[in-house]
Amino acid sequence: MADLPLADLPLVDAHCHPVFVGSAGVSGQERAEFERMLGEADRPAPVGVSYADSLLGAAVRRWCTPPLGLPAGAPLDTFLDRRAELGPVEVARRLLGAAGLSYLLVDTGIGGTDGAGSDWWSVRGLASAAGAVGREVVRLESVVEGLAESGVAATDFADAYVDALATATRNAVAVKSILGYRHGFDVDPRRPSRAEVTAAARDWLLSRRDLGIPQSGTESRPAAARLRHEVLLRFVLWCGVDRGLPVQLHTGFGDRDLRLPSVNPALLQPLIEAVEPVGTPLVLLHCYPYQREAGWLAAVYPHVYVDVGLTVGQVGARAGAVLAEFCELAPFGKLMFSTDAYRLPERYLVGAAQFRHSFGRLLRDWWRDGDLTARDTERVAAMVGADNARRLYAIDG
Amino acid sequence: MADLPLADLPLVDAHCHPVFVGSAGVSGQERAEFERMLGEADRPAPVGVSYADSLLGAAVRRWCTPPLGLPAGAPLDTFLDRRAELGPVEVARRLLGAAGLSYLLVDTGIGGTDGAGSDWWSVRGLASAAGAVGREVVRLESVVEGLAESGVAATDFADAYVDALATATRNAVAVKSILGYRHGFDVDPRRPSRAEVTAAARDWLLSRRDLGIPQSGTESRPAAARLRHEVLLRFVLWCGVDRGLPVQLHTGFGDRDLRLPSVNPALLQPLIEAVEPVGTPLVLLHCYPYQREAGWLAAVYPHVYVDVGLTVGQVGARAGAVLAEFCELAPFGKLMFSTDAYRLPERYLVGAAQFRHSFGRLLRDWWRDGDLTARDTERVAAMVGADNARRLYAIDG
Amino acid sequence: MADLPLADLPLVDAHCHPVFVGSAGVSGQERAEFERMLGEADRPAPVGVSYADSLLGAAVRRWCTPPLGLPAGAPLDTFLDRRAELGPVEVARRLLGAAGLSYLLVDTGIGGTDGAGSDWWSVRGLASAAGAVGREVVRLESVVEGLAESGVAATDFADAYVDALATATRNAVAVKSILGYRHGFDVDPRRPSRAEVTAAARDWLLSRRDLGIPQSGTESRPAAARLRHEVLLRFVLWCGVDRGLPVQLHTGFGDRDLRLPSVNPALLQPLIEAVEPVGTPLVLLHCYPYQREAGWLAAVYPHVYVDVGLTVGQVGARAGAVLAEFCELAPFGKLMFSTDAYRLPERYLVGAAQFRHSFGRLLRDWWRDGDLTARDTERVAAMVGADNARRLYAIDG
Repeated sequence: MADLPLADLPLVDAHCHPVFVGSAGVSGQERAEFERMLGEADRPAPVGVSYADSLLGAAVRRWCTPPLGLPAGAPLDTFLDRRAELGPVEVARRLLGAAGLSYLLVDTGIGGTDGAGSDWWSVRGLASAAGAVGREVVRLESVVEGLAESGVAATDFADAYVDALATATRNAVAVKSILGYRHGFDVDPRRPSRAEVTAAARDWLLSRRDLGIPQSGTESRPAAARLRHEVLLRFVLWCGVDRGLPVQLHTGFGDRDLRLPSVNPALLQPLIEAVEPVGTPLVLLHCYPYQREAGWLAAVYPHVYVDVGLTVGQVGARAGAVLAEFCELAPFGKLMFSTDAYRLPERYLVGAAQFRHSFGRLLRDWWRDGDLTARDTERVAAMVGADNARRLYAIDG
Repeated sequence: MADLPLADLPLVDAHCHPVFVGSAGVSGQERAEFERMLGEADRPAPVGVSYADSLLGAAVRRWCTPPLGLPAGAPLDTFLDRRAELGPVEVARRLLGAAGLSYLLVDTGIGGTDGAGSDWWSVRGLASAAGAVGREVVRLESVVEGLAESGVAATDFADAYVDALATATRNAVAVKSILGYRHGFDVDPRRPSRAEVTAAARDWLLSRRDLGIPQSGTESRPAAARLRHEVLLRFVLWCGVDRGLPVQLHTGFGDRDLRLPSVNPALLQPLIEAVEPVGTPLVLLHCYPYQREAGWLAAVYPHVYVDVGLTVGQVGARAGAVLAEFCELAPFGKLMFSTDAYRLPERYLVGAAQFRHSFGRLLRDWWRDGDLTARDTERVAAMVGADNARRLYAIDG
Repeated sequence: MADLPLADLPLVDAHCHPVFVGSAGVSGQERAEFERMLGEADRPAPVGVSYADSLLGAAVRRWCTPPLGLPAGAPLDTFLDRRAELGPVEVARRLLGAAGLSYLLVDTGIGGTDGAGSDWWSVRGLASAAGAVGREVVRLESVVEGLAESGVAATDFADAYVDALATATRNAVAVKSILGYRHGFDVDPRRPSRAEVTAAARDWLLSRRDLGIPQSGTESRPAAARLRHEVLLRFVLWCGVDRGLPVQLHTGFGDRDLRLPSVNPALLQPLIEAVEPVGTPLVLLHCYPYQREAGWLAAVYPHVYVDVGLTVGQVGARAGAVLAEFCELAPFGKLMFSTDAYRLPERYLVGAAQFRHSFGRLLRDWWRDGDLTARDTERVAAMVGADNARRLYAIDG
């Protein structure tokens, strides 16, 4: 085993998002804006602190500089100057092109859409720039918020949602739940009854009207328009389960909208057990800092899978250590790579390059120490990097 | 320090279980059955996934192949063919023999018993195959379930349990509590009153009768027969504390019957403090992923000890990393090796060999880096591997 | 980068405590006493166990022996003999002198005061022995307990506390909250109203009188005199926030007086958000085993900082591993060194030397692996070791 087993493997990015290719936030003068788009803070850093002075910032300077013709580790200001010089579209093309991805499963629930005049690349734009096949992941909560904007009556709500979801997922490979963000995992695990859904829909639709939320769709919905009603969140999750496509669930860290202790995936045990008879696979996304809990769930529940996205791309030099924790209990056939990249194309390349580097080294170390055979390392690399996702999401079909 | 300090140390296995030496699950054709018996899943893996594609599976192929005359790391199918060829008794003999154990403290609360015609090896059979001394650990909940089957009256329940426990533990070195499985650690820490116990016993005995659970003892009790009544679980735990032998407590991961967040050993603080005046040692078993919490408890409460069993044997290549976390706060005199092996003899050898290898390397690295002296590493190896358990369980007496 | 980047950096100890330089606990005969003062146990270890057989004990023998003229790693008995020979004052002088500290921010809420006849070194004595500048950190709960002893009326309580805090913090660089110890983080995040404070003060002052707690100040208050009233704890914390100095909060492990699950800093999210508009920085101290949760808070909330004190000094050989977890998400500009040393001068040197060694090695490894540039490692070392604290606590002003 001369090289790392992942060096040339085309990866399946099993969970990612649109990128912004407009001009805001990409010039050298807008360093603060770039820094904020990079991490999960979404507020300016205090005086004297830079979000880019972090393992994530260092990883960007390591992996994203060579495709822009700079030496690895070049200072951030140099990088941002070069970025401004090349322009956002060229930068995105180079970074996505260097990521070595074969498939992109794009959650379209945040960010803009493809199209002439759009500053965003979604499924189509991303796939074209990456030289990959793009497929869609549909966010359950986006469909319900779209439905509310359509002026649906509460009594029709349940049926209308099932129809809307069927339509929205016609070409999708998975659905995605952000229950963790909107409520946390301390929910009643049962399917709500039809009467409960109707009553909840009535409450929610009325509260939206009282808040003066316009019914016509807008690209960026006001926070008040977000669905936070526990019964409806459960309802759309169960509709996702009944749809039969794998359900990706946000778990663990993200931005400040979530309460960290309430997104520990171990809190999902009752729901996981309620879903088991249906047979729909549940994919725990991100997980950090609960990757060990997630690994245990994947080890004991046949229909539970784990996705390392966001985490691996965020912790830079520590990606290998965190990946090792994912592997402690989770069967390798249940573990999947993704970038969870959003907005900045840097996140695509950092996610892919850091995973390739760190998981490759981890496997090589285990081989050198006698824990795995050379053949094992190659199989495991292929499984986690691509094969598990191809099988689970049936993306070759 | 040429060799690892644990290379030749006879280990005390401070918590283990009977193994199955019948023919089910050991032929090459029954690979799925073997895989399921290996981990904590107890359900078939989904299509395309193998539970043996895991660090645990790799550890089995690493440590258990040479005693069967195969090269380390041989494929699982080769291993299972050879296993079938040799037959379960010979395989168990070889694997137990290779584990290098001097004492086995066997929790007899699951699995079968020794004896002619039995497909199980318990205290006697295991000790004989391992060339070790076998001693018994009595499970508190098994004694109470046996009592229920005897037809005891609720008013006699408290006294009868104390008597039954005294009889059952006449030759035991410890008792074992599975409160974590049956209820979780969110319990009232107080000793229940006699009146509370009688009332609870009445409820429980009636509910068993309503469920039609036969009073005569059966080897494998139906799940419905399990004691889950909070008051009675506390009562038997306090009887165990009053018995004076060390009390081993299941904490942390295991199979799906437990709720992971509720078996965090840190939740035991109120109970630990209530037990302290009695002086009975409490041993936190397994602990993962809460090994750091367990280490803190061992550091601040004089009567709290920590046992690394199950965890070390389950995480294979990651055993060293997890052991290091156990050591962060726990005094070395409070930390103990065990395998927690059950059903498959492989678990005995994997637990022992992986611990020897990984803890030995960890100590050697600390010595090389100047953290410990050579003499320290030898003392710590002997303490954790054998001496702490010999002292705590008074097994030489 | 020939040397570790921290080898000669004068560190700012951003959170520490007085040391005892009287004769108790320092002679070779009082080994048990020394061991107990070293860790967090505060009760004798059981027969056969020594608290010094731990990574902390090994770190003391590694780092504190050379300044006393002994070889690194000398046995503890040798060390204690030498300690007794030199006497506590000389020992404290050597150990503090060897720590290489430039500033000491001393929480004076526990331990004694400077002065002729005192067996303690506080801000003045410590600074003199360390060759450093000493500044005070005022404990919010100490000020309120002092106020209760002054005989204040409940109706004057709120105003009197604000005045007392203003006086106490005239020369302070920060305030400190031990809400984690006294209640845990499951509190109402709101500022209590004046009426609530008056009612709570009335309750608390009456309960103190009923317990017969003398009103005149005593150096060591009985445990019953401690403030545990949730409303008043919140009130003093909010007064600290309004005072405008950085607020240091105890989070994570410590001695048995706390309930570990209730001091997870992630539970502070509602309070952190309530404080944000005021702008006062919050510094999460210690954090272990929740350092990853703390790092996330520092990454998403601009006014949240993280301090590695206590943890790094307690886990010895594992300091590098734990520091790496702190760094996974926290921006380097939010992370600060401290020793949290108390009572034994050994804790000062162990904290400083282990940090210098372990964080230095961690940065060097990241540089060798290409994760950071050489210039990055030097900047990060200076930031975490000194510059962040100088800026945050404005100690050069």
